[in-house]
Amino acid sequence: MSLETVSLNKSYEGVQGVYRHNSRETRTAMTFSVYVPPHQAGARLPVVWYLSGLTCTHANVTEKGEYRRACAELGLIFVAPDTSPRGEGVPGDPSGAYDFGLGAGFYVDATQPPFAANYRMWSYVTAELPEIIAAEFPADAKRQSILGHSMGGHGALTIALSHPERYRAASAFSPIVAPSQVPWGIKALGGYLGEDRAAWRKHDAVALIEDGARFSDLLVDYGDADQFLTEQLRPELLDRACAKAGIPLILRRQSGYDHSYYFVSTFMDDHIRWHAARLTA
Amino acid sequence: MSLETVSLNKSYEGVQGVYRHNSRETRTAMTFSVYVPPHQAGARLPVVWYLSGLTCTHANVTEKGEYRRACAELGLIFVAPDTSPRGEGVPGDPSGAYDFGLGAGFYVDATQPPFAANYRMWSYVTAELPEIIAAEFPADAKRQSILGHSMGGHGALTIALSHPERYRAASAFSPIVAPSQVPWGIKALGGYLGEDRAAWRKHDAVALIEDGARFSDLLVDYGDADQFLTEQLRPELLDRACAKAGIPLILRRQSGYDHSYYFVSTFMDDHIRWHAARLTA
Repeated sequence: MSLETVSLNKSYEGVQGVYRHNSRETRTAMTFSVYVPPHQAGARLPVVWYLSGLTCTHANVTEKGEYRRACAELGLIFVAPDTSPRGEGVPGDPSGAYDFGLGAGFYVDATQPPFAANYRMWSYVTAELPEIIAAEFPADAKRQSILGHSMGGHGALTIALSHPERYRAASAFSPIVAPSQVPWGIKALGGYLGEDRAAWRKHDAVALIEDGARFSDLLVDYGDADQFLTEQLRPELLDRACAKAGIPLILRRQSGYDHSYYFVSTFMDDHIRWHAARLTA
Repeated sequence: MSLETVSLNKSYEGVQGVYRHNSRETRTAMTFSVYVPPHQAGARLPVVWYLSGLTCTHANVTEKGEYRRACAELGLIFVAPDTSPRGEGVPGDPSGAYDFGLGAGFYVDATQPPFAANYRMWSYVTAELPEIIAAEFPADAKRQSILGHSMGGHGALTIALSHPERYRAASAFSPIVAPSQVPWGIKALGGYLGEDRAAWRKHDAVALIEDGARFSDLLVDYGDADQFLTEQLRPELLDRACAKAGIPLILRRQSGYDHSYYFVSTFMDDHIRWHAARLTA
């Protein structure tokens, strides 16, 4: 595995890096960002994974997420992958829509042609990229956590619920909590996984919980001025599933906030501190 | 004056707005951003002006500047204008260079054709836009301060030195301090103001100080890994001029930092607090 350094910028006494590599999973070049906080030589640091939403790359949260101050203070590595394979020959949405294909991998391993060859974001985020982070950065693989925004909130919740032993904390901003029940998710899961809805349940946080998945506790923020709230996000479905399953969920309705990074950045500090408390306990 | 609202996003309990209007000075549509922190009804708040650098619009600092948290906490309005007129018919650099014309107004009122008709960023930033801010936002015109980055640091320093009675604080990140003595400035001041260098001195912080301009105190940060440091920025010239004139200057060389917003955002909080201390004293 050879890692190309795209850029390195000192920030909050640490280093914000952007890297590129040829992915064995997606069979494309993949770009991701890693913030490494100031630390003592030889230290191994907890890792916070951040999964981005529809249309995003690593760059959105890297530029607008306002996570570095808290990560520097608390000594956390922050990793931001891309949201899909990209490049020549990678199939996208036939009509060029923003909610499927490029920028919209939905954190699944596609089984359907023509997507199955490249759209392997589940394996990329849970297996390939963690190996790279463990090998190339001062990371403590025993202390990892995960969060995300929108489609990335879906990714964070489903990945955490599927690996409760690996991630010590999980949270989300404006997540898609039940993709099987909303238009974005039905389109994406149908397109990547096919029409057999049994295969969708492993990629639906509410269904995973119904099927027995558990996590220590969850933090979710959403804005009540979010234009996707009632049709695509539906946080009440997660609330109900967690209540029934006995999973402690802090679900916060933030008055007046929308779906943008102006919302995410406002509450990023809270989320980082929630993660840090669980990563350093 | 009719102000068009381009976008409003709640952030840190305040509102980040972007606005557009037809400027009497530039004779173009001009876009700017204003963050209004949470405040009590009827309150009039201090105003911090932020001037951006080459190639930037209002959007760079609005997205990457990380100023909202401190402005929300301290109750400061934050205004970010564009860096030049733009649009059909506005002349740019003949060869399309990034350091003159569009995105590079240098905060002067051009006297040379074909630039004199539109390139009036001095009057725009010091007269027209302050009137709009005073009229349309809960601003206290008696409590204003100014800062900027690179070309915008040049703008902030020259505007503050020319209006010491109006701005209670001034600071800069990586400013061009002596444009008459560096390539960017010689090209810009020559192009906008003509070859008579006497006219340049009002737009050169070091020359202004040599000619008697004074300011209470100044704060300047720069990174020692800034690729423009030795050729374009030359902070030692400001250091020498301030020492000679008896202007208290805090000039901080930040080890390992470059010219980017990763640097600016790291020290934004410090600058905002420096301004707040002087605005609320």
